[in-house]
Amino acid sequence: MNILMAFNEDTKPRRRSKVVSAKHDDKRTAILLCAAKLFASNGYESTSLDRIAEQMDMHKATLYHYFRSKEQVLYQCLIKSFGDLEDVLVRMDDKRIPVLERLREFVRRVARAQNNEYGRCLVLVGSRPLELMPDDGIRQFQRRLDQTVRALIRAGIRDGSVRKCNPGLFSALLFGGLNWVPRWHRDEGALSVEQVADTFVDILLNGIATGKVK
Amino acid sequence: MNILMAFNEDTKPRRRSKVVSAKHDDKRTAILLCAAKLFASNGYESTSLDRIAEQMDMHKATLYHYFRSKEQVLYQCLIKSFGDLEDVLVRMDDKRIPVLERLREFVRRVARAQNNEYGRCLVLVGSRPLELMPDDGIRQFQRRLDQTVRALIRAGIRDGSVRKCNPGLFSALLFGGLNWVPRWHRDEGALSVEQVADTFVDILLNGIATGKVK
Repeated sequence: MNILMAFNEDTKPRRRSKVVSAKHDDKRTAILLCAAKLFASNGYESTSLDRIAEQMDMHKATLYHYFRSKEQVLYQCLIKSFGDLEDVLVRMDDKRIPVLERLREFVRRVARAQNNEYGRCLVLVGSRPLELMPDDGIRQFQRRLDQTVRALIRAGIRDGSVRKCNPGLFSALLFGGLNWVPRWHRDEGALSVEQVADTFVDILLNGIATGKVK
Repeated sequence: MNILMAFNEDTKPRRRSKVVSAKHDDKRTAILLCAAKLFASNGYESTSLDRIAEQMDMHKATLYHYFRSKEQVLYQCLIKSFGDLEDVLVRMDDKRIPVLERLREFVRRVARAQNNEYGRCLVLVGSRPLELMPDDGIRQFQRRLDQTVRALIRAGIRDGSVRKCNPGLFSALLFGGLNWVPRWHRDEGALSVEQVADTFVDILLNGIATGKVK
């Protein structure tokens, strides 16, 4: 099952016409984008649904028609940011692609998702608000990303492309580095998110030591 | 100047007797410890000074005698956690010690500070509350840690022990990984904070790829 869809309202059956539905989706996307920007710039705690409605120039009751709670808005930002996650995870299982190549692609995809306009706010806010939700989606989601990296490392150790190491600690270092990027990376900066991701993978795979100890 | 002391109340001249002062310091430390635990378990926003006073079984006015604001409590946790920072920074300049050895020690010290009972809450809470303070201490502090790592990497590139790389991205990856540790590491776990720090340094220096691409 697509774990990200478990909490996705869009899976509910709809009886509305296509035109109404498209308009509804546009509005929904606009609200998410507005909320994501407010979360990222003012913080999650300081951004109320009232504030989002005000910024959108809409009545709070109308906003509630789209989202039931602030947590749900944040969760939908996560879903929006990782829209192609399922495709990526399928590719990570494709044994025709060398392990380290798969790892490199995975890191790029995660970096892109975390630094797009929807994903950034979640990394900046942290997952605590979502952890308080009755739904266990966020933990399942994080576990799935972590397990994907660990599985790749174990596959690399098996086929000899990766030296013996602790896959869990490797994953912790990688995700720590990635989760930190939205805090310092600026779109207008000299380096793209992909360049950052590639450099991280380079360091993690090849190290920075020359072996000549001085 | 010791930047951590810039905001430290303890630098104010005192006229009290040694006994009274020692008692005052004990109480202060007890409040910090109590607050750090509450911040770490319930979050910063959800922990009021009232709640800290209640947990300490003291009147709020008494608490204000020790700390003027919640931000100040958090800042003092930072100071307490990095108590020996100045000594560490002096050692990082000691050219008799090989660069990579200095880097390894630095990472261990930072990891220890971030995961002790005072430091953990700050990493979990994030530095945003401190960034809102008029004092620029937190940014100076973070910049100083970052600059220390960059300087070590540049020194390593100069003496040939480190291959050419982007010192800023190396530092971002390292601190990202370190900042993430308090979110998943448990004291009762199989690995000590020092072992985690050493493994991170191993991966960052030597990489995990064998060079045999499969």
